[in-house]
Amino acid sequence: MSNSSQDVDVATILQNVLGCKWTLHILAQIRQNVNRPGELVRSADGLTTKVLNERLTKLIRFGILQKTSYPEVPPRVEYELTEFGKRFSNLLDEVDRLQNEL
Amino acid sequence: MSNSSQDVDVATILQNVLGCKWTLHILAQIRQNVNRPGELVRSADGLTTKVLNERLTKLIRFGILQKTSYPEVPPRVEYELTEFGKRFSNLLDEVDRLQNEL
Repeated sequence: MSNSSQDVDVATILQNVLGCKWTLHILAQIRQNVNRPGELVRSADGLTTKVLNERLTKLIRFGILQKTSYPEVPPRVEYELTEFGKRFSNLLDEVDRLQNEL
Repeated sequence: MSNSSQDVDVATILQNVLGCKWTLHILAQIRQNVNRPGELVRSADGLTTKVLNERLTKLIRFGILQKTSYPEVPPRVEYELTEFGKRFSNLLDEVDRLQNEL
């Protein structure tokens, strides 16, 4: 799938992300540099590898995360926010800020 | 329904508003001071009185709009943003801004 800006609908992505507690949890963890799959699975009771992988795949498709594989033994994989992902995360912060100010 | 802040979940409201083109249209019109029911119905092809009234009722329930009835002949009714509605609208502007900057 292309990641050109024409494909990205911020409103649709925001609806999807806000609607999934695991997606919000995973994003919050990665923003705190918990960015390896094993660490992420251990970061929450009830989060399975299957659900984690589905959410990570979705966040990459949305252009929010990028995956880096390091050719080490054992292999190391890390997930990071893209530039768009950082700006998108600021939007989530704005939602939290308005909620907390009520 | 009470409008106390405990009842307001900004993320849920944002998901709902972003998912309804009529709601977004009506909010945009009211922000431009098109705030009487007749004007609002005429502001878009395809917007019926029934759909308009449903969306206005929902936006009042969310705490975004307030309705004022003026005891005139003929009676005059206007819809305005609440303080929360103004801040919520800023959030919608942030979504648009990120979309336009892509």
